[in-house]
Amino acid sequence: MPRILSGIQPSGRIHLGNYCGAVRQWVDLQELGHEQFIFVASYHALTTQRDAPAYRATIRQLATDLLAFGLDPARTALYLQHDVPEVAELAWLISCVCPMAWMEKMVGYKDKLAKGISPNVGLFNYPILQAADILSVDADLVPVGRDQVQHIEITRDLAARFNEEFQAPVFKLPAHRLVPEAEVLPGVDGEKMSKSYGNTIDPFEDENPLKKRVMSIKTDGKGLTDAKDPETCNVFRIFRAIAGKNDQRTIDLAVRYREPGPQGFGYGHAKLALLGLILDHFGPARRRRAELMADPAAVDAALRQGADRARAIVRRTTDRARAACGLA
Amino acid sequence: MPRILSGIQPSGRIHLGNYCGAVRQWVDLQELGHEQFIFVASYHALTTQRDAPAYRATIRQLATDLLAFGLDPARTALYLQHDVPEVAELAWLISCVCPMAWMEKMVGYKDKLAKGISPNVGLFNYPILQAADILSVDADLVPVGRDQVQHIEITRDLAARFNEEFQAPVFKLPAHRLVPEAEVLPGVDGEKMSKSYGNTIDPFEDENPLKKRVMSIKTDGKGLTDAKDPETCNVFRIFRAIAGKNDQRTIDLAVRYREPGPQGFGYGHAKLALLGLILDHFGPARRRRAELMADPAAVDAALRQGADRARAIVRRTTDRARAACGLA
Repeated sequence: MPRILSGIQPSGRIHLGNYCGAVRQWVDLQELGHEQFIFVASYHALTTQRDAPAYRATIRQLATDLLAFGLDPARTALYLQHDVPEVAELAWLISCVCPMAWMEKMVGYKDKLAKGISPNVGLFNYPILQAADILSVDADLVPVGRDQVQHIEITRDLAARFNEEFQAPVFKLPAHRLVPEAEVLPGVDGEKMSKSYGNTIDPFEDENPLKKRVMSIKTDGKGLTDAKDPETCNVFRIFRAIAGKNDQRTIDLAVRYREPGPQGFGYGHAKLALLGLILDHFGPARRRRAELMADPAAVDAALRQGADRARAIVRRTTDRARAACGLA
Repeated sequence: MPRILSGIQPSGRIHLGNYCGAVRQWVDLQELGHEQFIFVASYHALTTQRDAPAYRATIRQLATDLLAFGLDPARTALYLQHDVPEVAELAWLISCVCPMAWMEKMVGYKDKLAKGISPNVGLFNYPILQAADILSVDADLVPVGRDQVQHIEITRDLAARFNEEFQAPVFKLPAHRLVPEAEVLPGVDGEKMSKSYGNTIDPFEDENPLKKRVMSIKTDGKGLTDAKDPETCNVFRIFRAIAGKNDQRTIDLAVRYREPGPQGFGYGHAKLALLGLILDHFGPARRRRAELMADPAAVDAALRQGADRARAIVRRTTDRARAACGLA
């Protein structure tokens, strides 16, 4: 079985977009028995975070939520990046074989420059730390979206160059697996669901504000008895993303859209159906989360377990890298 | 007493230029009772080193030689940079508050670019790691030559910016002390003594090759009985640098140059005088070095002692920095 690594940035509360785009697949891979490492990228997000108490809480909440979603510390190593500080040392070693030109061509960095953003050095070095994350655990496979493929390619290039420059098989070259482009999940305003647009739906929200949020999803002006097109409706698309397109509830909902019948089926009904689905689908996760919030020691123990597992591997990688450089 | 930090790059065997330019001052500061941290900059030199066995030996020899010169582990913390890997983590944290422009303006980097050298990212990030070295041990003072002043200034700027961005007094702002510009020590060819010119004199060289080396120092064509100008003579200048300009032996030698007398005093005599001075001046160091080479465990113990002392402080600094960022 290939060893899989994924990371997630602690940049705010987790939302349905994160769940559908990443977290759900991690739980699936776990259930399929894959060896999986998931880390909260706490060093990475420091390129932008400045409010320490808020950031500390965000990191903690994200880890708690991931456990609540079903990541099982006995099977998946879930860890905080800064609990494995060896990656920073590896990043330095790797930076010494990385030509400036390789970083200057990274699209993420060039985008920032093009937008007139004055980047910090952390942002420039970001792909090197990311390479260190991947190489540190000897990952075989990194599931990524299309925009992250360049990062895995540069990781392979850096690994190969390091091995060659120091004439030692230190790093395993990882492969990427392109995650099937999930349909873009719309937010409440119809734009792509994203923290930066402020249009997210949080599956762990309390029921009343959650209902308010769902009821605020933008729809067109069709009336109760008008036939509606589910494909263009934000409510339906979110429903389908959660339940799955082949799920009977999704199929039934599409029928109600197209054939509201004489009693009518309006967007209000669709939204209540979505609310019900969210509460149903995330019911177990919401209950687990409440339990974890009441039992911080359990979260501590899970993160310690994950860090211990990761660190045992990372230390061996770091030892190999140091020895290859002449530092041991 | 201010805490003083200095580093030295392991880029080859130590020579008279290193001794006169730096190591001697460290021994003096130690004798004056200063709290001093000296590290072998093993991460830094990795921007250029690729031959691991040779590099490992260079690092080891440099540490041994520093001890032989008189650094006393009971008073001066002598450590290898890679024995305190927390500096790499600190460097990452600092990089997240460092504008790209600050690094792009560093003279060392610009010089490399101007020379058409294609730099690696390690070289670009070098001043950040150097800042981490200095800040990690809460150094008050860093003795530097004029060309290093910019590095201490950027270290202060980075420290101040980090403290301000994260609203916490994490780093102590270090000062630099300009080392009085030692007269440039000439090598055997009269150019500045430097590893890269291959014109160095190694005070730990065996007596025969050392004699050969000293006898090869370039002089002018003046004969035995000609009056000579000590100020323009490479042999005299090296002699004076080692013995000191107010030393009676130096004063006597200058007289012999100017007034060789009827018996004559030629460059061969001056070179033998220099050889005698080197063997005399470095006699204790040469004996200590032979002892240390025969007792690797003593070197290990000294380096462990130094690393333990440094690391105790560095860990506290790192803890403060992590807490200020929200990582703990």
